[in-house]
Amino acid sequence: MPRKPAKKRPPYPAQPPSLTVPLKRGMEPWGEREGRQETPISRKTKAATCDDDAVITALELPSAELTPGMRAYFDKCTEKLGFVPNVLKAYAFDMPKLEAFVAMYNDLMLAPSGLSKLEREMIAVAVSSHNRCYYCLVAHGAAVRSLADHPILGELMVMNYRAARLDRRQRAMLDFAVKLTALPWEIEESDRAALREAGFTDRDIWDIAAVAGFFNMSNRIASATDMRPNPAYHGQKRE
Amino acid sequence: MPRKPAKKRPPYPAQPPSLTVPLKRGMEPWGEREGRQETPISRKTKAATCDDDAVITALELPSAELTPGMRAYFDKCTEKLGFVPNVLKAYAFDMPKLEAFVAMYNDLMLAPSGLSKLEREMIAVAVSSHNRCYYCLVAHGAAVRSLADHPILGELMVMNYRAARLDRRQRAMLDFAVKLTALPWEIEESDRAALREAGFTDRDIWDIAAVAGFFNMSNRIASATDMRPNPAYHGQKRE
Amino acid sequence: MPRKPAKKRPPYPAQPPSLTVPLKRGMEPWGEREGRQETPISRKTKAATCDDDAVITALELPSAELTPGMRAYFDKCTEKLGFVPNVLKAYAFDMPKLEAFVAMYNDLMLAPSGLSKLEREMIAVAVSSHNRCYYCLVAHGAAVRSLADHPILGELMVMNYRAARLDRRQRAMLDFAVKLTALPWEIEESDRAALREAGFTDRDIWDIAAVAGFFNMSNRIASATDMRPNPAYHGQKRE
Amino acid sequence: MPRKPAKKRPPYPAQPPSLTVPLKRGMEPWGEREGRQETPISRKTKAATCDDDAVITALELPSAELTPGMRAYFDKCTEKLGFVPNVLKAYAFDMPKLEAFVAMYNDLMLAPSGLSKLEREMIAVAVSSHNRCYYCLVAHGAAVRSLADHPILGELMVMNYRAARLDRRQRAMLDFAVKLTALPWEIEESDRAALREAGFTDRDIWDIAAVAGFFNMSNRIASATDMRPNPAYHGQKRE
Amino acid sequence: MPRKPAKKRPPYPAQPPSLTVPLKRGMEPWGEREGRQETPISRKTKAATCDDDAVITALELPSAELTPGMRAYFDKCTEKLGFVPNVLKAYAFDMPKLEAFVAMYNDLMLAPSGLSKLEREMIAVAVSSHNRCYYCLVAHGAAVRSLADHPILGELMVMNYRAARLDRRQRAMLDFAVKLTALPWEIEESDRAALREAGFTDRDIWDIAAVAGFFNMSNRIASATDMRPNPAYHGQKRE
Amino acid sequence: MPRKPAKKRPPYPAQPPSLTVPLKRGMEPWGEREGRQETPISRKTKAATCDDDAVITALELPSAELTPGMRAYFDKCTEKLGFVPNVLKAYAFDMPKLEAFVAMYNDLMLAPSGLSKLEREMIAVAVSSHNRCYYCLVAHGAAVRSLADHPILGELMVMNYRAARLDRRQRAMLDFAVKLTALPWEIEESDRAALREAGFTDRDIWDIAAVAGFFNMSNRIASATDMRPNPAYHGQKRE
Repeated sequence: MPRKPAKKRPPYPAQPPSLTVPLKRGMEPWGEREGRQETPISRKTKAATCDDDAVITALELPSAELTPGMRAYFDKCTEKLGFVPNVLKAYAFDMPKLEAFVAMYNDLMLAPSGLSKLEREMIAVAVSSHNRCYYCLVAHGAAVRSLADHPILGELMVMNYRAARLDRRQRAMLDFAVKLTALPWEIEESDRAALREAGFTDRDIWDIAAVAGFFNMSNRIASATDMRPNPAYHGQKRE
Repeated sequence: MPRKPAKKRPPYPAQPPSLTVPLKRGMEPWGEREGRQETPISRKTKAATCDDDAVITALELPSAELTPGMRAYFDKCTEKLGFVPNVLKAYAFDMPKLEAFVAMYNDLMLAPSGLSKLEREMIAVAVSSHNRCYYCLVAHGAAVRSLADHPILGELMVMNYRAARLDRRQRAMLDFAVKLTALPWEIEESDRAALREAGFTDRDIWDIAAVAGFFNMSNRIASATDMRPNPAYHGQKRE
Repeated sequence: MPRKPAKKRPPYPAQPPSLTVPLKRGMEPWGEREGRQETPISRKTKAATCDDDAVITALELPSAELTPGMRAYFDKCTEKLGFVPNVLKAYAFDMPKLEAFVAMYNDLMLAPSGLSKLEREMIAVAVSSHNRCYYCLVAHGAAVRSLADHPILGELMVMNYRAARLDRRQRAMLDFAVKLTALPWEIEESDRAALREAGFTDRDIWDIAAVAGFFNMSNRIASATDMRPNPAYHGQKRE
Repeated sequence: MPRKPAKKRPPYPAQPPSLTVPLKRGMEPWGEREGRQETPISRKTKAATCDDDAVITALELPSAELTPGMRAYFDKCTEKLGFVPNVLKAYAFDMPKLEAFVAMYNDLMLAPSGLSKLEREMIAVAVSSHNRCYYCLVAHGAAVRSLADHPILGELMVMNYRAARLDRRQRAMLDFAVKLTALPWEIEESDRAALREAGFTDRDIWDIAAVAGFFNMSNRIASATDMRPNPAYHGQKRE
Repeated sequence: MPRKPAKKRPPYPAQPPSLTVPLKRGMEPWGEREGRQETPISRKTKAATCDDDAVITALELPSAELTPGMRAYFDKCTEKLGFVPNVLKAYAFDMPKLEAFVAMYNDLMLAPSGLSKLEREMIAVAVSSHNRCYYCLVAHGAAVRSLADHPILGELMVMNYRAARLDRRQRAMLDFAVKLTALPWEIEESDRAALREAGFTDRDIWDIAAVAGFFNMSNRIASATDMRPNPAYHGQKRE
Repeated sequence: MPRKPAKKRPPYPAQPPSLTVPLKRGMEPWGEREGRQETPISRKTKAATCDDDAVITALELPSAELTPGMRAYFDKCTEKLGFVPNVLKAYAFDMPKLEAFVAMYNDLMLAPSGLSKLEREMIAVAVSSHNRCYYCLVAHGAAVRSLADHPILGELMVMNYRAARLDRRQRAMLDFAVKLTALPWEIEESDRAALREAGFTDRDIWDIAAVAGFFNMSNRIASATDMRPNPAYHGQKRE
């Protein structure tokens, strides 16, 4: 994927002259436009987006004292990831809520399952894309890129999973998860049958539903509180 | 944004033991799970997503001979960007169509306007996000990152522009563009009035509408043809 | 609410003759129509709906051995309610999943909060109504009837919370919860501001979001698995 | 369906202790929580919902003098049902409108048809569920429970007809009625063909359409006027 | 409105040459393209659309013998309009149904009301436009053109009532009718208040709701049966 | 299509008396109602709709000097059509924008293609109907009527293309175009396959997508600017 690095680049350069109208404007080659006065992104906007996680949520909920278990868990996060994910800090105002969230999350996403960890993250991102959840798309989009060891699959899950060239199994899995997200009242036996035909067991169906359900919860808590992702996710596994 | 590089990383490590059930599974620390057998992403899936643009569209439309003007334009693309954007190759089966597209695109996105080039790209991406257009989100998401000289604004436009901390002008601009995309039949004088109150002139309103309209066209041509973006976009301006 | 008991009753009796067409049919008083041959509800349909919970879900997931804690909890359910709620039996194929669900559920719905238990159940039902989740509407509709000590509020939450004559606080709470359910990507500061103006604290906002989020998860797991409610809920607190 | 009666009951009791965090709150058994201060349902809210039909609609339209025919009809309602359905009182401000409504209603719902009266009421409720019409769901939900001589079918029609275990004929009938309600512009020959394959005649198809159409009218008149159902419906045929 | 009559006319002629590509095609003036081979509309398609009402509905329901009242009414239609509206023929398989429809229709659309007959027809068309009902748009679009004595208002109601330049009263009336059509479950006191502020009485509100409701019924019966309008409507009051 | 001309005509005359209520109102024959006071369409409303194009858009954008090419093109419009289409006047504030629009429009709609000009106009109108665009429905509805040499096909495209009795090819074409308009993110290989099965080539698929895309742009520019069509379109080819 060799490419010439470029800053402040529109996606294509301007076209060469081709219309009868004298090209008084807009048509000069891209290079010459450098001097033109651009309305810059406002300082405030830039600061706000750069310091994305200076304030983690829109709610003022001071952190409680971590229990020993949660303290050890946060330390492990820092050691392994370099930071404590902001969702954990957001829940840290109340230890029982933090513990319950962590217990359910880890069971769903990391415990043994017929679904690989990557598949569970793919569900997470496809669901979060339907729900347009900024926090979850950033954090779990990075997870898909990392677990797939490739940058593009994560972008496809964020943007439109239907554009990804998936095998039949993974496509059926995501179709179920996204229909369950968009139109849960229309899920019926034929939807479960489609999963079974794609090779999933009843236990796998539970796990697909449970992961999709969990992110339908998390997306809403993140959106309700304007939760901000750790900026470090943005650059992970981009090439 | 210092962080510890990591491969194949789920977003958070597993929690420490905290439940009464013996942790036979799922709860061991993340590090120890490395040895576990993951269902890998299929070779075919990986190849398909890696070689994203081996086939640019789902339609077999052999390239026509480029006119001298278009030849010069493609050469300039290669010189400036390192590649010819795939949308141009997709249109190259027919010179009048390619020329008309290039003329309209360059006028809209690069000619003088009360909207900065960055603002026009922000509209492009917010519209493409509503329409979940993979090609346009990749290509123009990269443009927002480059023109803003910052990686996060592009992600916000791709994922949910409402989560971006924008000034009033840019928020009004995107609200109009996205409503025009989603519910064009409900645009009325009050919507134009909101733009005027945010400081936009009648000419600016035309430009907002024209850029939003153009990407409603392009999104549909890209989706109809399964157009694939050049992979180089993915890594641009990520940090 | 005195009323005359009646079986197999259409909501109104037939009208007296009033049209010029001889009333050969359809217009005779209701009482006289008793002898007419009705297509009865099929035996199979009746059996299926009567034995609503003979099979709790559409997935074959044999119960695991209950941990001592879960065994005690199920016993308490039987003692207090007369039955073990089917959702718990559905999760009982896997103890960590059951424990995580119970821990999160009990914290959300029963722990101290600025929201009363009734208010949390009202959120549960209004969210489940948007998602048209049979299991949750039956189980939590009964809870609203019981906690309100009145049958009608539960029906209003099931059918259309907007038709209920609520005070401003509870209306704001449900408006937020249902918007968060339907359009999570459109929740913004103005939505949180509306809750604060209605008297809610930041902690209350978290709790509203967390309960609404939780039922967006549970609704989907119930719909994905065709979960059936215990029939005993139907008759609870009807007068 | 034996069950232990209980008042003010959350759907499940609280779990036994199972987390490492000291259970300062929320986790104690349900029984002990009785003493806790609950925010009660406001007196005003309770009165409003109890006296559901003190005011039948939001419009002030004084009743006209009943014609002899309508007087006899109202008397028959009182004799047979114990009350005059509120929808009739709502129309009673104008005799021609009341007569036209009664004539059409009785023809549709009570005249001979290939559809049983129960089937027509099932259509009424499934349509009213799509339209979330409080009046019609209460009044016709009670009719389904009564005509089916069973409480659960009515709840299924109110909550989500897709969750009911119906035979093929009744499922096809409701699928048509609800699609006609939601997306009338997409009804085509294939939809009629599906009804014919399920055993319906052309006359039956008319009747399904006419009943579905009628409740699309009634739902809107009830919603437009905030029409309130007679409270007696709520308790009918609950066990 | 003077204009030069023209047949088979695209809306604009072709542009003069303006691009660098030799205009081998597509750019020649419109006049010269006459000789080009057009794929004509198929004979079958043309016949089908010309003989729009050779078959009035998709259901085979033979006409019953008209009652004397209905016979007189049909005769009056022929005398006044030159034809019997197809909807009446469609209902003529059953006299009580025909009579009930005619009674309700005439009361709603022709009886004294605070709404003019034109206003009631405007509601009919705006509702039918939301529901995309071919029969009702043709028949009642013609009525709006005739009652307004002007061709354009009818087209605006058919295409998008929001584009019509209406006074505040009529705009409020249509906003209520269309919201009641699209989202009946969201109609609340504030919607009725907006009508009262625009000068409508409670009786007027009933009439707006009743007309909107009636066409929500009729649209669905027409769509369910593929009802075809009398072709004579198309040419009425076009200039 | 012989018919008796009539002014200010409701679609059906009033019914003869048929109810027991004395017909004090609403039921008298239509002819006798002539004398009743109708609330007339307001003078302002009538003027506004009559002078539909006194003001072409809601934006004040003074016309620029036409280039010689555009001057010749406008002259040709006047000669051929009797007027310059308002969309061209709307773009005339800026010559490069006008030229680019004209170049793309003429290539799409008039250049050689596997789609006939009529088919391209059918796509234009079906797309504009989904988007409820007043300008495009009027201008291109007239084009369909003219090119089909028949008034009804245009009305069907405006009102609901699904009600038109089309051959399989044209139905597949419009289904693709309208799905691409409504749900571009759901277009996939199976949608392209359906077009190929209906006889379309890959080049045809491009053209369908490009025309549908173009009107998704134009609809939005027209709606954003409240563009008004030339009144002459309304009367074209009505019989």
